[in-house]
Amino acid sequence: MGESRLMPLHAVILAGGIGERFWPLSRRDRPKQFLALFGARTLLQQTSDRLEGWIPADRRWIVAPGTLMPEIRRQLPELREDRCIVESVARNTAAAIGAAAALIAALDPGAFVLVLPADHWIPDIEPFRRAAERTLAAAEETGGLHLFGIPVGYPETGYGYIEQGTPLAGHDGVHAVSRFHEKPDRERALAYAKRTDMLWNAGIFLWKAGTILDAIGQWMPAMRGGIDGLRAALREDGGRLGPKATPALDRYFRGAPSESIDSAVLEKHGAVFVTRAGFRWSDVGSWLSWADHRETDTNGNRGEGRLLLHDTSDCVLYSSGDGVLAALGVRNLIVVRVKDVTLVCARDRAQEVRDLVRDARDRDDLKELF
Amino acid sequence: MGESRLMPLHAVILAGGIGERFWPLSRRDRPKQFLALFGARTLLQQTSDRLEGWIPADRRWIVAPGTLMPEIRRQLPELREDRCIVESVARNTAAAIGAAAALIAALDPGAFVLVLPADHWIPDIEPFRRAAERTLAAAEETGGLHLFGIPVGYPETGYGYIEQGTPLAGHDGVHAVSRFHEKPDRERALAYAKRTDMLWNAGIFLWKAGTILDAIGQWMPAMRGGIDGLRAALREDGGRLGPKATPALDRYFRGAPSESIDSAVLEKHGAVFVTRAGFRWSDVGSWLSWADHRETDTNGNRGEGRLLLHDTSDCVLYSSGDGVLAALGVRNLIVVRVKDVTLVCARDRAQEVRDLVRDARDRDDLKELF
Repeated sequence: MGESRLMPLHAVILAGGIGERFWPLSRRDRPKQFLALFGARTLLQQTSDRLEGWIPADRRWIVAPGTLMPEIRRQLPELREDRCIVESVARNTAAAIGAAAALIAALDPGAFVLVLPADHWIPDIEPFRRAAERTLAAAEETGGLHLFGIPVGYPETGYGYIEQGTPLAGHDGVHAVSRFHEKPDRERALAYAKRTDMLWNAGIFLWKAGTILDAIGQWMPAMRGGIDGLRAALREDGGRLGPKATPALDRYFRGAPSESIDSAVLEKHGAVFVTRAGFRWSDVGSWLSWADHRETDTNGNRGEGRLLLHDTSDCVLYSSGDGVLAALGVRNLIVVRVKDVTLVCARDRAQEVRDLVRDARDRDDLKELF
Repeated sequence: MGESRLMPLHAVILAGGIGERFWPLSRRDRPKQFLALFGARTLLQQTSDRLEGWIPADRRWIVAPGTLMPEIRRQLPELREDRCIVESVARNTAAAIGAAAALIAALDPGAFVLVLPADHWIPDIEPFRRAAERTLAAAEETGGLHLFGIPVGYPETGYGYIEQGTPLAGHDGVHAVSRFHEKPDRERALAYAKRTDMLWNAGIFLWKAGTILDAIGQWMPAMRGGIDGLRAALREDGGRLGPKATPALDRYFRGAPSESIDSAVLEKHGAVFVTRAGFRWSDVGSWLSWADHRETDTNGNRGEGRLLLHDTSDCVLYSSGDGVLAALGVRNLIVVRVKDVTLVCARDRAQEVRDLVRDARDRDDLKELF
């Protein structure tokens, strides 16, 4: 589909997630994107699979810390080494997106960029591509920054919300963004869920490489020097990460503030648009969210692995490998069993797994398990 | 202490338990007596340790199925091979006790026998020995069958009870047994706990070898042939398990009914006595019972291993080896983590672990884990 356009579409997969909320299955060196949470392929592989036959390998990029790159390249053998952008220091999405945009613009000055988190659940490929193509067509016309919004399914308190504004004429389902809303409390989430003009912010973006670079420079003055240095070095290296650009990229990350593209740029920028995207989506932010996308047994249990359940209901259960997870007379629990760790968590405390992991990572006696 | 008596005291450890209630730590080939549930030594080793320096190795006997003997001999290197009595078919305590009595009587016609379960918790050795010595002195006088009774600590529904009768003159704390009471329901247990004449039946016995053989023959007519055959063969083999007695022992077990010594003999016999035994004791019948003998943290949790607890209370937690068991926001659970299995169980359902195991042992897809 994209092949016929004048302006090629590149894809950037942000794969720098740090694996806290799926502990103990996820670990520091095995974050969520590396896990096969839905089927045989990992979330990272499924993200790449969504591009297959659509965006060719020489236009697929990955941004991640160097520590994760060997596993990324093992999982994605088709990935080109010169499309791997190493974050020498872990920053947030703004720095990662800026680096990718600079590299892509150096090769392909008019290129558009689709930015994808590596660890989301999007089970259906075709509706996803159609939404991306609609967004690309709109972005070619607006020259703005485009987001993907998911019609609200239920009052989720874990997502940011986008309030849609004026429709973009001639582009069905594309609207100017009226306002961004932070993760709401329960009451607000209930109100948002009743409105048809509120969308979940899926963290998926589409824009021209040069446009996002200009916007980052405009709204994040601290990044201007780094971007300019990186672009100049790339020109010296003929558009590639050669002997000049490689250290410039390192300097760029070291000097970059750790901010999200949403709060640092998108919420301030004028020309921001959202596409109402009909595909099924989740950021799979916790074991509970993972379970939401699975079938239940007759007692409301959801899970995977070798389970042996007696008089057990409304539990989320995961057991890795050949090991068995047995439950007797319990309910409303999340239980995750891997070889060296088992986590037992109240069903309504799934979000706090992250805090538990952050605490334990500092403990000398436990850190090897986190 | 026993060394100075005319009639030597032998000890018989009953080690045929089948490991259901401590699953998943216990397995078919690793029953409770093989587990180090309290400290570094296993329950079997601790049972043998109680005899050290008191009953010499040539008067210590073990009865167990042949499948368990290699591990028993590994755990008890001091055990003499000719003191290992193999149950060729797993029967109950009456058959095991009868076989041991026959072998001991063949070597030592006037011997007394102390019968000990291999899997009980008795942390203090001296009070235990004093109770045994008091019982031996009484048994030498009465020629009867003697039991050990533990003053009731709380309304336990999992133990059988002994109602004491007339005191035996000249033997402090030794009484004729007035009546045996089955495991009571909750209401009866509460009533028993208020009485000073009720004792827990600890399943520990002391009697002359010949006396228990006669009593078994009297109350279990089906065992007479087996006992007579075994004793005759032992005489032919000079009192040892030689070429005649070894097959006779096999025939003895094959022909024996599977009955407990309590219900088949003691509850019917006339001259039965109980010693009020002051040592701390538990049959450690479940994970909950195990936890009762451990200290709690400030939130009422009891456990062992690498535990990581956040906002967790009144749980029983066991994690084997280097593995971690983490809990977040839960209470009143029993959680047992071993490498290949985790069990999560409601605190008040500990007794049902046995049923879960019995069900699962028949399942082809699970039996290797039970």
